[in-house]
Amino acid sequence: MINKIEISDKRFELSTGAGSDAIHKDPQYSYAVTNLTNENGITGTGLAFTLGAGNDLVCNAAQFYANTLKGLDIEELMSDFGQTFRTLSNEQQFRWLGPHKGVVHLGLASVTNACYDLWAKKRGVPLWKLLIDLSPEEIVNTLDLSYLEDVLTKEEAITMLQSQTDFKKSRESILDIGYPGYDTSVGWFNYDDEKVRENCKKAIANGFTAMKLKVGSTDPKRDIRRANIVRDVAGETSKVMLDANQQWTLPQAISICNELKNMNPFWIEEPTHPDDVLAHQILAKEIAPVKLALGEHVPNRIIFKNYLQTGCTGFAQVDAVRVGGVSEFITISLLCKKFGVPVVPHVGDMGQLHQHLVLFNHIAMGHEALFLEHIPHLKQHFKNPIKIENGVYITPQEAGSSCDLK
Amino acid sequence: MINKIEISDKRFELSTGAGSDAIHKDPQYSYAVTNLTNENGITGTGLAFTLGAGNDLVCNAAQFYANTLKGLDIEELMSDFGQTFRTLSNEQQFRWLGPHKGVVHLGLASVTNACYDLWAKKRGVPLWKLLIDLSPEEIVNTLDLSYLEDVLTKEEAITMLQSQTDFKKSRESILDIGYPGYDTSVGWFNYDDEKVRENCKKAIANGFTAMKLKVGSTDPKRDIRRANIVRDVAGETSKVMLDANQQWTLPQAISICNELKNMNPFWIEEPTHPDDVLAHQILAKEIAPVKLALGEHVPNRIIFKNYLQTGCTGFAQVDAVRVGGVSEFITISLLCKKFGVPVVPHVGDMGQLHQHLVLFNHIAMGHEALFLEHIPHLKQHFKNPIKIENGVYITPQEAGSSCDLK
Repeated sequence: MINKIEISDKRFELSTGAGSDAIHKDPQYSYAVTNLTNENGITGTGLAFTLGAGNDLVCNAAQFYANTLKGLDIEELMSDFGQTFRTLSNEQQFRWLGPHKGVVHLGLASVTNACYDLWAKKRGVPLWKLLIDLSPEEIVNTLDLSYLEDVLTKEEAITMLQSQTDFKKSRESILDIGYPGYDTSVGWFNYDDEKVRENCKKAIANGFTAMKLKVGSTDPKRDIRRANIVRDVAGETSKVMLDANQQWTLPQAISICNELKNMNPFWIEEPTHPDDVLAHQILAKEIAPVKLALGEHVPNRIIFKNYLQTGCTGFAQVDAVRVGGVSEFITISLLCKKFGVPVVPHVGDMGQLHQHLVLFNHIAMGHEALFLEHIPHLKQHFKNPIKIENGVYITPQEAGSSCDLK
Repeated sequence: MINKIEISDKRFELSTGAGSDAIHKDPQYSYAVTNLTNENGITGTGLAFTLGAGNDLVCNAAQFYANTLKGLDIEELMSDFGQTFRTLSNEQQFRWLGPHKGVVHLGLASVTNACYDLWAKKRGVPLWKLLIDLSPEEIVNTLDLSYLEDVLTKEEAITMLQSQTDFKKSRESILDIGYPGYDTSVGWFNYDDEKVRENCKKAIANGFTAMKLKVGSTDPKRDIRRANIVRDVAGETSKVMLDANQQWTLPQAISICNELKNMNPFWIEEPTHPDDVLAHQILAKEIAPVKLALGEHVPNRIIFKNYLQTGCTGFAQVDAVRVGGVSEFITISLLCKKFGVPVVPHVGDMGQLHQHLVLFNHIAMGHEALFLEHIPHLKQHFKNPIKIENGVYITPQEAGSSCDLK
């Protein structure tokens, strides 16, 4: 029974330039943390990620949702969590503040994630293990598929998962091999050329075969120069991704992406405003065969549905600390599977939670084990920080979702 | 010079059933109020509208933005307000909480609206008068057109307004005639059949020739029965609008709207989730020639652009206390003009502010003077409540935007 609820506002300093991109010049990585404790003293921890200012608003929203869970048994709650998610996300007064987006949805993410963490800890297993051992019906009972009826019904979701059951065992080999990572931190926006070059060398030395550069400079020549540096160090066989963090207008994006094509990027990420589905549709056609990666700022399953329907999404970067937590992350992963689009999460959680979710996506849903973003900047603040060796995430063995902060 | 900033959280009780719809069963109409006072003691008042819970979060966001305006001269600020809007709405840490949507954007609406109110009061004129007397360049300088470059440039916006200049004088006749209203309060969701019938009779007796019914019942037969009641009392010449407040899935909407067509609705409003641009596109084709009205929950110009690009928007219900205030309302009205779509605002402000804005839209932009929603439930709380006679808004003459609360 959940009998103690604590919400806390945690903000962390970053070293100079870390985390910077074309839009977010000086972020302060922060979490709205939900702690739900049961009668045995087991505490579930859930995160939502922000860049500092306003993290208190998300905490306030999380408190609003968490209060409704007091007195509930976690197993009972999770046996039908989809209905709870639907009820909470549609709370009739709070819903006006979204619906299903912005501060209130971030608050819901924090609470939802705490529920999944508590569930796994209570069963004494890592979240990936809990999820892959659930039956298709049990999984789908944790999801809210409302407003997706035109593309994904509950029955179809169950059938999709059932069709993968026979393949689960063989895919569990990933647990020993480890899930590949990619290095996001070689080229933050504020880093100078020399630092980018040095970081690329380090990434290669550390076993990474994929890395990301921030673009979106006022002068596109800077982007091209830096992109060529990364390609130069990384070599032709490594994957290099470019991330504009919404900086471009559509006309700018068309022009600049066509120039950046020359260095053969694996994807171009967040070229323009995350609400502009149709601009992405146009751009995707213009720059093919280079693909777009998007979703870091897409708040819910409904907008992801639209993105998938337009065919512009090369890679879906759903983030479980941005959408309504693990539940909506799984819903969106199912949508992506249906549309044949790989899921490569943005990791506002620094990969702590997502290392579990991509294992589940691969083993139980049949998603390709492409790679998972790696951002090391908050490592020292987690009780069980992710372990990455030779460019590969080592499968976590502790109970829960690895989100406890020190 | 703005030297005093006050934010207040105002919540009002409604009489039983008033304000209820298929999704929002028991709202508490509330405002996050921004007051900006200058050195002469003139106070500008701006509103953002919510349904109660979380109104404090919007106040908190408004405080964050308003603090940046301290010490600024209102004339100087408004001479280039588009740039200020762009800077505030992209504040690099706060932006993560949207961008341009949810709690933070509602907070920005409240602050933006206070700036326009202070500007008009300082000049001693009603807001409609201030706006129609501005030059096209001065208007466009108050707008942020970023992320619209693919459909509307600054130059084109100026040209659009210039092309209307010669017609302004003749359209000012609306100021004497009054802007038509429509009655939203005949059929709130929780009202029983008899109350709906009585309210329709009263609306007709009060001179309204257009009125709205809430639909989206669990049993579609209830919707059809109630719609027929309204049509029966209103007669064939009155316009009857139906509002589902996002209650339906796309498959449901297609089926139910095709049944509701029989009573010849003037529009069907918010059939499904406000983020689902593509569902609206499909639905609009299915139910033509009946048109969709939408926008009450659409938070910004970028999503409106997408809605307009798909051609599914019969009527754009942009609300200046939902999008980023008067500035973004005007931006969206320009977009609508370009796409040939009428603007019929949702009035979270109870029409206080929008009575000014629709006059401007008609006189200076050439939008059709169709009608403006009328909701009387907070009338007694405003210092200068809207006046409606014979179904027509009487043009306000007090300085400012009529948003001061008692």
